[in-house]
Amino acid sequence: MAKATSRLEATRDTDFPKWYLEVIKHADLAENSVVRGCMVIKPWGYAIWEQMQADLDRRFKETGHVNAYFPLFIPKGLIEKEADHVEGFAKEMAVVTHHRLKAADDGSGLVPDGELTEPLVVRPTSETIIGESFSRWIQSYRDLPLLINQWANVVRWELRTRMFLRTTEFLWQEGHTVHATKAEAGEETARMLEVYRAFAEDVLAMPVITGEKTPEERFPGADRTFCIEAIMQDGKALQAGTSHDLGQNFAKGSDITFSDKEGEVQHAWTTSWGVSTRLVGGVIMTHSDDNGLRLPPSLSPHQIVVIPMDLDDEVVAAAQELATRLRGLDWRRAPVRVHVDTRDYDAPTRRWEWVRRGVPLIVQLGKRDLGSGKAMLSRRWREQPDRELLQQDEIVAQAVEILEDAQTTMWDEATAYRDAFLRDDFTSVDEIAEAYRGGFDGVVIAPWDGEADMPKELAELALSRRCAPLQRRTSGDTCLFSGNPATQDLVLARSY
Amino acid sequence: MAKATSRLEATRDTDFPKWYLEVIKHADLAENSVVRGCMVIKPWGYAIWEQMQADLDRRFKETGHVNAYFPLFIPKGLIEKEADHVEGFAKEMAVVTHHRLKAADDGSGLVPDGELTEPLVVRPTSETIIGESFSRWIQSYRDLPLLINQWANVVRWELRTRMFLRTTEFLWQEGHTVHATKAEAGEETARMLEVYRAFAEDVLAMPVITGEKTPEERFPGADRTFCIEAIMQDGKALQAGTSHDLGQNFAKGSDITFSDKEGEVQHAWTTSWGVSTRLVGGVIMTHSDDNGLRLPPSLSPHQIVVIPMDLDDEVVAAAQELATRLRGLDWRRAPVRVHVDTRDYDAPTRRWEWVRRGVPLIVQLGKRDLGSGKAMLSRRWREQPDRELLQQDEIVAQAVEILEDAQTTMWDEATAYRDAFLRDDFTSVDEIAEAYRGGFDGVVIAPWDGEADMPKELAELALSRRCAPLQRRTSGDTCLFSGNPATQDLVLARSY
Repeated sequence: MAKATSRLEATRDTDFPKWYLEVIKHADLAENSVVRGCMVIKPWGYAIWEQMQADLDRRFKETGHVNAYFPLFIPKGLIEKEADHVEGFAKEMAVVTHHRLKAADDGSGLVPDGELTEPLVVRPTSETIIGESFSRWIQSYRDLPLLINQWANVVRWELRTRMFLRTTEFLWQEGHTVHATKAEAGEETARMLEVYRAFAEDVLAMPVITGEKTPEERFPGADRTFCIEAIMQDGKALQAGTSHDLGQNFAKGSDITFSDKEGEVQHAWTTSWGVSTRLVGGVIMTHSDDNGLRLPPSLSPHQIVVIPMDLDDEVVAAAQELATRLRGLDWRRAPVRVHVDTRDYDAPTRRWEWVRRGVPLIVQLGKRDLGSGKAMLSRRWREQPDRELLQQDEIVAQAVEILEDAQTTMWDEATAYRDAFLRDDFTSVDEIAEAYRGGFDGVVIAPWDGEADMPKELAELALSRRCAPLQRRTSGDTCLFSGNPATQDLVLARSY
Repeated sequence: MAKATSRLEATRDTDFPKWYLEVIKHADLAENSVVRGCMVIKPWGYAIWEQMQADLDRRFKETGHVNAYFPLFIPKGLIEKEADHVEGFAKEMAVVTHHRLKAADDGSGLVPDGELTEPLVVRPTSETIIGESFSRWIQSYRDLPLLINQWANVVRWELRTRMFLRTTEFLWQEGHTVHATKAEAGEETARMLEVYRAFAEDVLAMPVITGEKTPEERFPGADRTFCIEAIMQDGKALQAGTSHDLGQNFAKGSDITFSDKEGEVQHAWTTSWGVSTRLVGGVIMTHSDDNGLRLPPSLSPHQIVVIPMDLDDEVVAAAQELATRLRGLDWRRAPVRVHVDTRDYDAPTRRWEWVRRGVPLIVQLGKRDLGSGKAMLSRRWREQPDRELLQQDEIVAQAVEILEDAQTTMWDEATAYRDAFLRDDFTSVDEIAEAYRGGFDGVVIAPWDGEADMPKELAELALSRRCAPLQRRTSGDTCLFSGNPATQDLVLARSY
């Protein structure tokens, strides 16, 4: 357990990448494992992921989806078929070639044995193995739509990894749906993008831009790829979720056909959509401050932590009683989540741990409060956590309002800094380039004709096309790249 | 979708193994995948697993455990260390040797490329990689107990596989805990065994014998292994969950030490415990009949399915209204789970599908019921599903009582057939052998001295030692194997 020293070694201003890793360490979210590029998600980090899972899973089910589970391994033959079919298919993946370890003849340890006739790949995504099942499950229009989601681990052999943002193994959900018409697949793609937007904004308090990827940035094999893009506190964009309209491409590759009402056999229309543990990285970089993690109450595994300052029976009993009263409250139609920390560490150590872990409300009470019925309330979501000595009755009476205030305030703050990064007033490519060379580190929104390539000058500044927002954000009528009439906007940023 | 023909091809009496696979197929629980030994868990099968997960997870958290996530891969070096340490360590596992597929020079497809310096094993269990983390997480007695659980997929290269019961990849949870004393580790082992027993009996309505494994049947590296054993409808035993007291063995292997209150550094005491998707197989073989799956209401993803016989607006609206009323009821402190099936299949097809899927209560209503306010109720849990035309008001008024009746009846039935398989009246080994050779296919409970080996004669009849029950079940005072004084009982059975 980290010591009770208050501050992280790095701050957002001095060294953002180091600060990010410091927040993860001090909030006890995750650590690097002995396996290259794979992380261990520690209990507090995993509890945040569980909150995300539970909320998303409810939204998926409310929109008619069911969960299923497909094999971890994909035979090489299926991958070959997909590689033929999909240009730009990535081939960096873990390959299983043997099914045994045996003692080496020279006594030097264990060596692979039992070579497989056909190597197996550890799924980098399950499109192809799910498509294989879907081709057998679907015969008639009556079987459609088929609305499946999978919660799973996937593996991509990444060269450079960064905890939560890009790891060799990560956890995600992948929705895979099949429809009878192009229109229905399009509606599904839009519906799930909206589920992601609402989840990101309402639960994570993370404002996002919903938009469409340019053709060059599309998922290989997709007709259209939509995304939610969030802006981190360093001005970089994070792709936080994607929803793909796959047209008939995957149905043709996997031979997913159905008989329509007239008895004609047709290829179906499919979609896929996913978010991952990367969202935890997004939450960290959206909300945390130089004291560590900050969590919006809708996401925090504990919304209130009660700390008995003295670990004697009377104080602990008073803390438990206060916790019970707080658990009796409902916020956003669920009981308030309250934890009592009775671990055998001194009180400041325990308090600072919950500050660094980002719990919105911390309540301390000690021996001297037994008579007065008071307790010390800290609002962690404030950058300078205040402390206020209140009657416990007042805390109980105000808790719901305070949680709502925390959620709203964090949303407002995140929106404010995000908006401060957005610039839509550039009038030329040179002006944009000059701004970045001059230290501008934000996001550009520029009128676009929907076709013009990104100028090389901007690509060289590490800018990439994030998306064309679904709603226009500028009123510019001339494409900044081509000078042709603008039909939409394009978001440019440096990104994770 | 399978046709509306009512019966399975095999029955329990004629061909139990084939019947088992037929139930899985007709209830749409799972299917074999293109990957050897790996299954696809279809939505209805996965929904059952989700119910199990949710209930177990709640029980784990109520007993103070938190979830975390550790890497899928284990470096060969860690496996070698464990293999040195643990006798009987199984080495049949998937080995990753490359991190890329590249186009073969001869154009024949993709071949493995990018050989790893050190091969990685796909976790067959996470003891060793978790131990590696624990050794760093724990310094002081203040960090104990450490109570961690993981929900994960694991892979064991099985020669013979059978859906849910033994598959190459399966889903499970593995609890891993660390304690300061031998006594506390022992208490934890017992606590989790009791969690499993209560879950199996209260939720799955599956009676189990709690007992201790003989030394020969212990988990390699454990001081003591405890289990819950269930008896299937063919008289075979199924090990449904295990809880291991690992003593200091794994702590020594993984170097898990802590400073005690006196500042002395000691090795810690650890436990592990797990259940898997095998439980789904156990539920199938405990409750199903010759019409397909039967699910106890506490487990069934839908407790009531409402089927509008005619798919016109009025009938569908009436079905939805009835469903809404039923969802307003609470059974066992949760809202009743109700599904309305409006798929475009004829009504008998839909009804038989839910019969085969084992939903406890099926309610049908059609055009002719609109005036009368009646509906047809089927109690699926009865082997001969009855149909009763009732007022919808009566159905709503009685639903909770009927669900309770279903749960109790299924428990009573499972207990009755299980008990009918138990025989504790044998007076010699020869008598046991003779009974099995004569067609007895049940379970033997025999007085035992706690040490005597299993007679070869019985091993040759494919009997194995399931466990020594925690509570004695016979009053015999002489070991049936050795003739020495009996200190406990031993359960013998054929098994899965």
